[in-house]
Amino acid sequence: MRNTIDDYDFDIVVIGAGHAGIEAGLASAKAGMKTLVLAINLDTVGWAPCNPAVGGPAKGIVAREVDALGGQIAKTTDKTAINVRMLNTSKGPAVRALRAQIDKKEYSLEMKKTLEKQENLYLRSAIATEILVEKGKVTGVVTHFGQLYHCKAAIITTGTFLGGKIFIGPKAFEAGRLGEFSSKLLSESLRKIGFKLARFKTGTPARILGSSIDFSKMERQDTSDTPLAFSYFSEPKVLPKDSPCWLTKTNSRTHSIIRRDIQFSPLYGDIKLIHSIGPRYCPSIEDKVLKFSSKDSHQVFVEPEGRNTDEYYLNGLSTSLPFKTQVEMIHSVKGLENAVIMRPAYAVEYDFVIPDQLHPTLESKLVENLYFAGQVNGTSGYEEAAGQGIIAGINASAKIKGAEQLVLKRSEAYIGVMIDDLVTRGVDEPYRLLTSRAEYRLMLRHDNAHLRLTEYGYRYGLIPRWFYDRVVSVREAINREANRLNDIVVKPSNSVNNKLLSAGTTAIYQPTRLAQLLKRPEVTYSLLRDFDPNPILDSSLAEQVETTMKYEGYINRLRQEINRFEKLENELIPGDIDYDKVPNISTESKEKLKKLKPMSIGQAMRIPGIKPADILNLSTYLTALKRRHIN
Amino acid sequence: MRNTIDDYDFDIVVIGAGHAGIEAGLASAKAGMKTLVLAINLDTVGWAPCNPAVGGPAKGIVAREVDALGGQIAKTTDKTAINVRMLNTSKGPAVRALRAQIDKKEYSLEMKKTLEKQENLYLRSAIATEILVEKGKVTGVVTHFGQLYHCKAAIITTGTFLGGKIFIGPKAFEAGRLGEFSSKLLSESLRKIGFKLARFKTGTPARILGSSIDFSKMERQDTSDTPLAFSYFSEPKVLPKDSPCWLTKTNSRTHSIIRRDIQFSPLYGDIKLIHSIGPRYCPSIEDKVLKFSSKDSHQVFVEPEGRNTDEYYLNGLSTSLPFKTQVEMIHSVKGLENAVIMRPAYAVEYDFVIPDQLHPTLESKLVENLYFAGQVNGTSGYEEAAGQGIIAGINASAKIKGAEQLVLKRSEAYIGVMIDDLVTRGVDEPYRLLTSRAEYRLMLRHDNAHLRLTEYGYRYGLIPRWFYDRVVSVREAINREANRLNDIVVKPSNSVNNKLLSAGTTAIYQPTRLAQLLKRPEVTYSLLRDFDPNPILDSSLAEQVETTMKYEGYINRLRQEINRFEKLENELIPGDIDYDKVPNISTESKEKLKKLKPMSIGQAMRIPGIKPADILNLSTYLTALKRRHIN
Repeated sequence: MRNTIDDYDFDIVVIGAGHAGIEAGLASAKAGMKTLVLAINLDTVGWAPCNPAVGGPAKGIVAREVDALGGQIAKTTDKTAINVRMLNTSKGPAVRALRAQIDKKEYSLEMKKTLEKQENLYLRSAIATEILVEKGKVTGVVTHFGQLYHCKAAIITTGTFLGGKIFIGPKAFEAGRLGEFSSKLLSESLRKIGFKLARFKTGTPARILGSSIDFSKMERQDTSDTPLAFSYFSEPKVLPKDSPCWLTKTNSRTHSIIRRDIQFSPLYGDIKLIHSIGPRYCPSIEDKVLKFSSKDSHQVFVEPEGRNTDEYYLNGLSTSLPFKTQVEMIHSVKGLENAVIMRPAYAVEYDFVIPDQLHPTLESKLVENLYFAGQVNGTSGYEEAAGQGIIAGINASAKIKGAEQLVLKRSEAYIGVMIDDLVTRGVDEPYRLLTSRAEYRLMLRHDNAHLRLTEYGYRYGLIPRWFYDRVVSVREAINREANRLNDIVVKPSNSVNNKLLSAGTTAIYQPTRLAQLLKRPEVTYSLLRDFDPNPILDSSLAEQVETTMKYEGYINRLRQEINRFEKLENELIPGDIDYDKVPNISTESKEKLKKLKPMSIGQAMRIPGIKPADILNLSTYLTALKRRHIN
Repeated sequence: MRNTIDDYDFDIVVIGAGHAGIEAGLASAKAGMKTLVLAINLDTVGWAPCNPAVGGPAKGIVAREVDALGGQIAKTTDKTAINVRMLNTSKGPAVRALRAQIDKKEYSLEMKKTLEKQENLYLRSAIATEILVEKGKVTGVVTHFGQLYHCKAAIITTGTFLGGKIFIGPKAFEAGRLGEFSSKLLSESLRKIGFKLARFKTGTPARILGSSIDFSKMERQDTSDTPLAFSYFSEPKVLPKDSPCWLTKTNSRTHSIIRRDIQFSPLYGDIKLIHSIGPRYCPSIEDKVLKFSSKDSHQVFVEPEGRNTDEYYLNGLSTSLPFKTQVEMIHSVKGLENAVIMRPAYAVEYDFVIPDQLHPTLESKLVENLYFAGQVNGTSGYEEAAGQGIIAGINASAKIKGAEQLVLKRSEAYIGVMIDDLVTRGVDEPYRLLTSRAEYRLMLRHDNAHLRLTEYGYRYGLIPRWFYDRVVSVREAINREANRLNDIVVKPSNSVNNKLLSAGTTAIYQPTRLAQLLKRPEVTYSLLRDFDPNPILDSSLAEQVETTMKYEGYINRLRQEINRFEKLENELIPGDIDYDKVPNISTESKEKLKKLKPMSIGQAMRIPGIKPADILNLSTYLTALKRRHIN
């Protein structure tokens, strides 16, 4: 039996139960906050409206970071995965990334169950229509059923549902997702409060019937033979090979159908219906055909939507062309000649909150204790949403408790990179995490997320003591072993040199430290294990030690750079600064600084278009200001 | 691989994929028709929006009838049942009924899978917006995506989605079900064609969180210890006792909360928002409290919504009172003191097609080849919907093929009773099947549905040959065994009379036929098995034989009555009859006959308010007319 009582007073109300809302709600509830999570439809909690997969480059690492902080996305992915692969295994550990196809329905059910079980968390069906604000602080949320929930903080995680509008060719209608209500009143409420909203668009391809696909014409991609898991809390396992993905591609006929009917596109057509911008890194097929006109073929991944359905997702064929064009286009692709369409492709246009209106804590600058997370902040992707969700949940709870809020550094986590990008640079297209966005990506690896973040998860009550202790001892073991390997000297011998030569590296002619050898790209710990008098038995520890040694040089250089930057990050800008008093900075920079209110010199530097000279002048002014205060 | 090609030409388009649409679609596809099934949301195919249960008195028998015809509802119920019980086991076989709690999500998934697998069937996401009619015949269906599907017949199974509007206290908004779109344009299209629509309302109770319920204060109802199955095609099984239902009840405090807040009811309140009529046999709690003011307690069944969720259904607490009242009311019930509400109760008002506009085949009188089935015809209940759905599917297919359409007699099936009631009497409240509606209920039993209906299922291609052959041989075996038992004479003896006396009946003093003894209510076949030289080994056959013998007297009398009525049913009224020429019938009867166009004297007799004398005069007129034709 639960021991918390349902009524109309909550600590935190989370609006939305998608990938951001789930993490926000769970983090709040675990932090002891009485948390209400509102969903328009309880049957689509944790829904994967786009491709049925979690992970991939950068995104996979974010899922892992959320897990290291004590979140849910990785655990549920492991429970409901039907096909898992480690990408870039031939490349270095820094770019390795896990990707899992999930059973979409199972994932949603599992997430709902998890929310149901969570003490302090109340999952309820309702559409939020209004945010109540008193004296600049959020005080409650009103729903379309007429309920008024009082709260100390609210977290908005509405995805594509704010003012959502769906387009299929010339047809348009209001919806958050196909078959689901959008929420217009909440947009109006936010505008009335003073938030600036803008519109983005995104899209999704058709779903087709498996038994109508000729898989014999496609390339099969099976689940990994190596036991894998996203979460530190799951047992890695090998999945049955019953749910392969399939690879096919478009051809010149496909492209000519698209070009012929582009006139009916709501984006490119004679009557332009969609004016907003879509995700650059997840473009529609008509985008790809128009922008890369020299390419006469694009990949299409045919992905199962789950074990309990025969629906397949056509990853790569997202479109908002009319239904007739969709059918013809799909039938032109090898293996899809007789494909039966179950759900049409569509584009959805939605309101988002321009994210430079947020602090790096994800609290809004305009209304105290009102947080935003996920696609409503202009991002794209389940993992990006989850990453913001857990931070919003942690920070809303910390704010209420009067504890310090969590702002992850760019050098600590992809989540830190993302939120800093969002609040500092804003977005001019749906934001997606890419490895290239992270300056310190060699440090932000899949394998060390727990070493980077578990301490925070533990501090905010999301990670159990036993796991925290384990991470601490792993970190100690890595350091201990790394030091030990540094002390082991390998003497030149036939047996050593044969091994080295067989691995494709050069022989040694004088005694060399084991650590030194491990820095060579071709050399693995297992190759040299025989020369270690106390070999490391735990293979994951051995891998961690090896990676640490290999990257030591880079990482040390990165650390120096980070230290330099951190000084800038720590050079805080007072909230009440009067930029008009700062001498010698350009009007343009002044306007941007006034608008974005950066919290530090580091953040100010990352504002696009700010001149380095202006930063220098600002820094000088702040130093002078401080000196004046001290004196 | 499927061998039918997807395009825009279909034989049959089914609008809706609920309990009616599923049976209609499967029946059409199995009959070889290229069938398109449109659903607003593919994730709620076969959804159970009200209580998570199939069966019960009369309804359970309908599910069994659909199964005997070759339908799906019973099979899927068996696959997804979590708690099954045979009701009225202490009463006679005529009123015995099976009732199963189903796992709501599993049921929906299973149904979707079944549709996906069905050759000739195309399941697609779209909202139908217009029915195209040419020369009085349906020619196509238009969707909100702008698709135009040509078809030879269409079946409308839209449930509560036509002009659906939800009410919670003073709040109202358009929706087909909570969180799902309603369909306004299709209502308009039907009105434009000339159909008369009216509005009904129905309602559903709140869903609450299991872990917030104090089950120790409730009465537990476990699944049966006897192996049970709805379908003739399923192996009867005993389910694990992990999903009990629970019984509690309202009290005088509950009732006074309701009375206090009745002013805010959209039905009874100061501002009356709902003007339509709800289901008499499934009333809201405020209906019960107001109409039976002397009762200070009503039963509430607390039913699990599935194995994979902690949501529970409060069967008996349907309401449209405001959310605050709902919470207070629920908390006043024993065991629900701390209940956490996950989804609110609500009423839904929707358009239905007044069913006297239909032929007994479920084809509309106004538009040829346009069929209606399910809640859109003013009925209530999943089983009622399924029963109409399969008939509409069979008949639309038969119509296209030029084959004879199926009209079940009132003496053959509850489905026959229902459709005859609908098309003859119309509806003045949501129609629910009750045993009392069937004059021949002793013949319309759970145990003999296959004997009554499988022949039709086989004839229309829905029942495989092997099963049909089995039913034929069962029927022969019953007759053979019944005749044999009639020939066995039991002599008075101590052993016989001890058995008879122990069973609570009187002894015999002269040789008596075994069949005669079986007619005694207290006597079962198993009691007398020792006196049968060739005892029946198959227990289900023995039960069938026993029931047949026991009811023989009644059934023979019923058969005579049916024969009399059938004569009237066979006394057909020509479609072009001019009622103004029929002498001596009242103007009122004339108007009703003109409006409802009964197909037979039997049907004319059942029109409410028609005077027996008028029927007699009509019959005389028809006989004279026929004689004139013959001469």
